[in-house]
Amino acid sequence: MKKNLPMKLAREVLQGNVRAAARLIRYVEDELPSAIEELKVLYPYTGKAYIIGITGSPGSGKSTLVDVLIDAFRKKSKTVGVIAVDPSSPFSGGAILGDRIRMQRHAIDEGVFIRSLATRGWHGGLSKATASVIHVMDAMGRDFILVETVGAGQAEVDIMDFAHTSIVTLVPGTGDWVQTLKAGILEIADIFVVNKADKEGANALKVELQTMLHMNAHSSEAWKPRIFLTEAINNKGIDGLVEGIYQHREFLFASGKYDAHAKEKGRLELIEVLRSSLTDRILQIASRDDYLDRVIDDLANRRTDPYSAASNIIKRVLREGIF
Amino acid sequence: MKKNLPMKLAREVLQGNVRAAARLIRYVEDELPSAIEELKVLYPYTGKAYIIGITGSPGSGKSTLVDVLIDAFRKKSKTVGVIAVDPSSPFSGGAILGDRIRMQRHAIDEGVFIRSLATRGWHGGLSKATASVIHVMDAMGRDFILVETVGAGQAEVDIMDFAHTSIVTLVPGTGDWVQTLKAGILEIADIFVVNKADKEGANALKVELQTMLHMNAHSSEAWKPRIFLTEAINNKGIDGLVEGIYQHREFLFASGKYDAHAKEKGRLELIEVLRSSLTDRILQIASRDDYLDRVIDDLANRRTDPYSAASNIIKRVLREGIF
Repeated sequence: MKKNLPMKLAREVLQGNVRAAARLIRYVEDELPSAIEELKVLYPYTGKAYIIGITGSPGSGKSTLVDVLIDAFRKKSKTVGVIAVDPSSPFSGGAILGDRIRMQRHAIDEGVFIRSLATRGWHGGLSKATASVIHVMDAMGRDFILVETVGAGQAEVDIMDFAHTSIVTLVPGTGDWVQTLKAGILEIADIFVVNKADKEGANALKVELQTMLHMNAHSSEAWKPRIFLTEAINNKGIDGLVEGIYQHREFLFASGKYDAHAKEKGRLELIEVLRSSLTDRILQIASRDDYLDRVIDDLANRRTDPYSAASNIIKRVLREGIF
Repeated sequence: MKKNLPMKLAREVLQGNVRAAARLIRYVEDELPSAIEELKVLYPYTGKAYIIGITGSPGSGKSTLVDVLIDAFRKKSKTVGVIAVDPSSPFSGGAILGDRIRMQRHAIDEGVFIRSLATRGWHGGLSKATASVIHVMDAMGRDFILVETVGAGQAEVDIMDFAHTSIVTLVPGTGDWVQTLKAGILEIADIFVVNKADKEGANALKVELQTMLHMNAHSSEAWKPRIFLTEAINNKGIDGLVEGIYQHREFLFASGKYDAHAKEKGRLELIEVLRSSLTDRILQIASRDDYLDRVIDDLANRRTDPYSAASNIIKRVLREGIF
């Protein structure tokens, strides 16, 4: 009898092999079934990396900030993984990747591993894909993993759930903190970065943020979000920011919140995996004999409704006993 | 034997009762099981309203545009429903609702029904909720339903799937079309509105958009996205925009795409309903006897992985035969 070979790719990833990791991440993006088998092998070795999420409106200098943070961690002899969660567009392609060009100076440094993750086709599965790529980099032995999001919407908030420290970047004089407020991402921030702090209004923005944080009364055991002024492009204020990240990490460990966080991440990922595997499987079965197409016809002609149709599909699949 | 009474709320909604519709929408937001029963009654009477989606970056004047579009449709004696999909924040509350104040002048007009839909707590279920609220307004007999999103991210793109005509708003000189491009929403636009067209760069932005649309070669049968310059706040350019919306509607009917669209909407909503009902039900069953908590503990301690755990949960639920 033929036995499954132990997963070669996973073993190479565990040895820190960058090319193997890159290939596995491609398999994850392509949703190959073998990717799951590899990830199963890797999972026991994960949970060691420290995850930092960076979000904020476009143009707030997130990529530049990530770029200088890489330098700062490398100076401390820490290895770094970067995941740029990047909505792609048939129109854009090169233009967006251009943002990443600055980071290419790290290309010859084996201690820095950068991957973009496109949202195209994911429609909600993005946080599952991000979690998988985090596992790959974690299993590679990266000390810090920076997850940078391009936009600032609900999808980004969901992704920030996986970060130990969530950083929200803002720029003075753009009114983009109102935008960030609207997207509901201000309350997920452990650290605020007022970037491009040489611009007029940087201190005013800091005061606004402080007032707003004060309004949101924290209990005494809670972390009090900190605010840092930086000029990422001139490498100014970065040491303070890194210090702030380390302080937040200390806080998580000392307060026991680090363990609570690990559980919460596990719960969120489990639900995502359950959700997508259940839906995929049931749609696959319901598609047999054009059953699904007929249901969709009935919906369009108002012969049924989505709630009754969904419940009929579930009943049919269970009756056929094919799960 | 006690028989279920026919759904009173649904019958009132079908008579165009605004208070009944408002109450049902609250039930939808609160995810009350009775809301589904009411929606089942309403569904056969839906599919008549024309849905217009309006998205674009914050500050591009979407609310003002919606406000003047309401006027334009009312002048044509059409009834209007407006759904403002509004991410809420514990910090914001009133500030965001302030945006809606301009629209309150329509409050005494029975032909205008405006509701905000908050994203708080939905985490991905937003498009299902939006679809439900569209059904309520559709069943009320509204001729046009305007769905306005606050941000411009993946969640917003998903919501635009429900619109017959998708409008993307842009403002000259803000570089926000680059942001919109990044969010991948440019290619969903049937109509572009360059709002605040009195600002410098309006024509340049129009030319940029035209060039970009030209690059994205359309087949000869496809709709060619149109670009309109408006100053919503001064009610300028709105007649042309409304004309453009009517032309797009004519195109959908003449090309048979209107029916294809109805099917696609049905399919999307069915999948959303399947996804959430499956996940809710299985999590509910898995939570018995603290089973789920123990699995989450095992995940945190790396005694299992999310993929094996998900498949074990499904097997357990099926073995117990409780679906």
